[in-house]
Amino acid sequence: MTMTPCSSPLLTDLYELTMLQAYRREGLTDTAVFELFVRRLPAGRNFLVAAGLAQALDYLEALRFSPEELSWLSSCGLFEREFVDYLSRLRFAGSVHAIPEGTVFFADEPLLRVTAPLPQAQLAETRLLNILNFQTAVASKAARCVLAAGGRTLVEFGLRRAHGGEAGLWAARAAYLAGFDGTSVTLASPLFGIPISGTMAHSFIQAHESEAQAFEAFARANSRGSTLLLDTYDVDQAAAEAAQLGLRLKAEGRPLRGIRLDSGDMAAQAKRVRRELDVAGLESAQIFASGNLDEWAIRDLLAAGAPIGGFGVGSRLATCADAPYFDCAYKLQEYAGKPRRKRSEGKATWPGRKQVWRRMADSRLSGDEVALEGEPAEGFQLLQPVMREGRRLPQPTLEESRRHARRQLEALPAPGKSLEPAPPYPVRISDGLRALAARLDEERRPIKAR
Amino acid sequence: MTMTPCSSPLLTDLYELTMLQAYRREGLTDTAVFELFVRRLPAGRNFLVAAGLAQALDYLEALRFSPEELSWLSSCGLFEREFVDYLSRLRFAGSVHAIPEGTVFFADEPLLRVTAPLPQAQLAETRLLNILNFQTAVASKAARCVLAAGGRTLVEFGLRRAHGGEAGLWAARAAYLAGFDGTSVTLASPLFGIPISGTMAHSFIQAHESEAQAFEAFARANSRGSTLLLDTYDVDQAAAEAAQLGLRLKAEGRPLRGIRLDSGDMAAQAKRVRRELDVAGLESAQIFASGNLDEWAIRDLLAAGAPIGGFGVGSRLATCADAPYFDCAYKLQEYAGKPRRKRSEGKATWPGRKQVWRRMADSRLSGDEVALEGEPAEGFQLLQPVMREGRRLPQPTLEESRRHARRQLEALPAPGKSLEPAPPYPVRISDGLRALAARLDEERRPIKAR
Repeated sequence: MTMTPCSSPLLTDLYELTMLQAYRREGLTDTAVFELFVRRLPAGRNFLVAAGLAQALDYLEALRFSPEELSWLSSCGLFEREFVDYLSRLRFAGSVHAIPEGTVFFADEPLLRVTAPLPQAQLAETRLLNILNFQTAVASKAARCVLAAGGRTLVEFGLRRAHGGEAGLWAARAAYLAGFDGTSVTLASPLFGIPISGTMAHSFIQAHESEAQAFEAFARANSRGSTLLLDTYDVDQAAAEAAQLGLRLKAEGRPLRGIRLDSGDMAAQAKRVRRELDVAGLESAQIFASGNLDEWAIRDLLAAGAPIGGFGVGSRLATCADAPYFDCAYKLQEYAGKPRRKRSEGKATWPGRKQVWRRMADSRLSGDEVALEGEPAEGFQLLQPVMREGRRLPQPTLEESRRHARRQLEALPAPGKSLEPAPPYPVRISDGLRALAARLDEERRPIKAR
Repeated sequence: MTMTPCSSPLLTDLYELTMLQAYRREGLTDTAVFELFVRRLPAGRNFLVAAGLAQALDYLEALRFSPEELSWLSSCGLFEREFVDYLSRLRFAGSVHAIPEGTVFFADEPLLRVTAPLPQAQLAETRLLNILNFQTAVASKAARCVLAAGGRTLVEFGLRRAHGGEAGLWAARAAYLAGFDGTSVTLASPLFGIPISGTMAHSFIQAHESEAQAFEAFARANSRGSTLLLDTYDVDQAAAEAAQLGLRLKAEGRPLRGIRLDSGDMAAQAKRVRRELDVAGLESAQIFASGNLDEWAIRDLLAAGAPIGGFGVGSRLATCADAPYFDCAYKLQEYAGKPRRKRSEGKATWPGRKQVWRRMADSRLSGDEVALEGEPAEGFQLLQPVMREGRRLPQPTLEESRRHARRQLEALPAPGKSLEPAPPYPVRISDGLRALAARLDEERRPIKAR
């Protein structure tokens, strides 16, 4: 069967469809309000950065079943004809509120709120989580790399170790949104307008009879400037070769862009290579480091005084290696005008449709409040309308969201900018919300406990 | 720009393309042999399970640039017209050898060997790693869940936390290959023929005025049998409601399939719920557990005597949470008939084109040898031809690969079946391979060290 996997509405948990069939049978098609939020921050993290909204809206706008998909649904033995007919007409026609991409946010704060007839809002659950959880995870980790790198160049390098193609592409987008300078993922340029860059692989060196010959050939073939990889055989010998080539190129008016280190003690190597390049008068050639880097490795290299101008951050960023998933959920908070509350052990939700209010002091984030919609609170509102009746409202460009993210990181309270765990940022649950939760608990108290 | 992201050849690192341009310029188009392998097992792991070959072959067979992609390549400023013309004609026309899907393998053993003109083999690097690393990671972890579950039902549940759509779909496939019974990912049925199943979400309960009403409605709407979710409000009260409903359904000749637990102390809950169901004469109703499970949690629940018949394994499996990427590489081992060796600190490769030989004793794996192709060794050969001149050879079905995986797990040496780290499985590097590596090191010794 040929389907374009990532845009198929069948890319969802089966239970969304079996629940829809039951909702339809019962006529449970009133307005539902679902909120998507992170229950708690991953260990050691001080904040999150919202990302993936553009893809979430793409998904909702395009949500429909193709004839081929409907035919499979008819024949799989799980669904009645009337329900499949209903699915053939199904479109997402609801409203969405969201915290804009690039915004810093915290646990318990709804990142997205969907208001739609129950079946439409329910069906979207799996894919909305799939889209927003991952991009937010990457953006949140990328922001820590940005804070650690202190203005040095950061390039996302993780496609080969990312979990499939969509992950590789979205990791590039989320990292750029959070402040990276570019990515190695070629497709990110035509699709998202993200600057792309790259160096060379060890195989390029190995395919040549000598390393010096490989460097020369690569520099000649890439007229925009080259970054030479030094660690295929011996870093110091390679640095000497690169310096000789750099001198020849300089004489032709074509500067060597830089060199890349990818293994071993890169702080020590970088100091030796920097000396070699400087002695040759190649001060403008940058040292670029890669190889299992993350925010801690960047910090440690810089703390060791490594004269590194740029970092390629790959596997550990694109797989969010220290927190490969967030404890995120998409929960029904209101149905047919009545607030709802899940009370599972350790997973209780705050009921009702909510807004997040943020206060600032001295241009820094100074405290948030999660309140019921309409409940008065101080500050400005984070959740903004982004879709009405199934159509997206005008959205910021990726560049605008990226500038927004940069200002957000600048506005983080000083302890929150540290890679070390800071005291929790104050997120208050409003009095109205607490009172509502208590009232619902009282109403729903188990019979046996009464 | 509209492109189908996951099937675009631009879903690759930019350097593959800039290197190709240099290769073309220099006429470096002789036959290259690249091997894809894992440098070392993730901490605590005793073996890996090969997965993803089918998608890797799909990729190689379909590799071509569309007019839209060529137009972007022409206009991006990085590539010469002659090179873009060359790309317009580029197809993968090489050979591939691989360890079949479902086979247990170890570090240093080539999982895939590509033999093709250097540009074709080079271009494929990024996406081949992207495809094989992830599916192998999931299959390897899923196999551990299979070993821990001792024959109980296992269903893959991770789409919502997987890293994008392709990851969710491939996690379902890799888990099934490794012995899972099914997945919640609907699309995995029409695409791969994988059994799909599901229960109900908390939101379904919450949308109803009472839990008992929700259970009843769900059971009526899903005539194939239902699994009721018990932990939305209070597990014991829900169990009593489920038992009452189960009795009514039984009287109509429609058995209750089971119940699901998703939070809290599930071992204790399972024992109480089992008693409730048994007292009602619902012995055939299964208890299904989910919620942050992995191989260790399954082992611990079973060790605590939890009467659980099935497990939904989601986030931690679909993100390979304890080892979200493997230290895998795709390296040039031979070019134009000459073996090549990368010598980077801690990342040196074994040169030349290789074969993996496996010996068995008493129907158990007893030791492997990585040898040069053509070098005599004992046992049978793991690397099999799977593609010739760009066309795949007849391949096993997913069901056949799954049966193969089951036999492989049965044939693991006893210590390797443990979740705890076992003594390393013996993988010998052949004398011929060691001699070749030593000879290449001698030839390539850095000038200054001579």
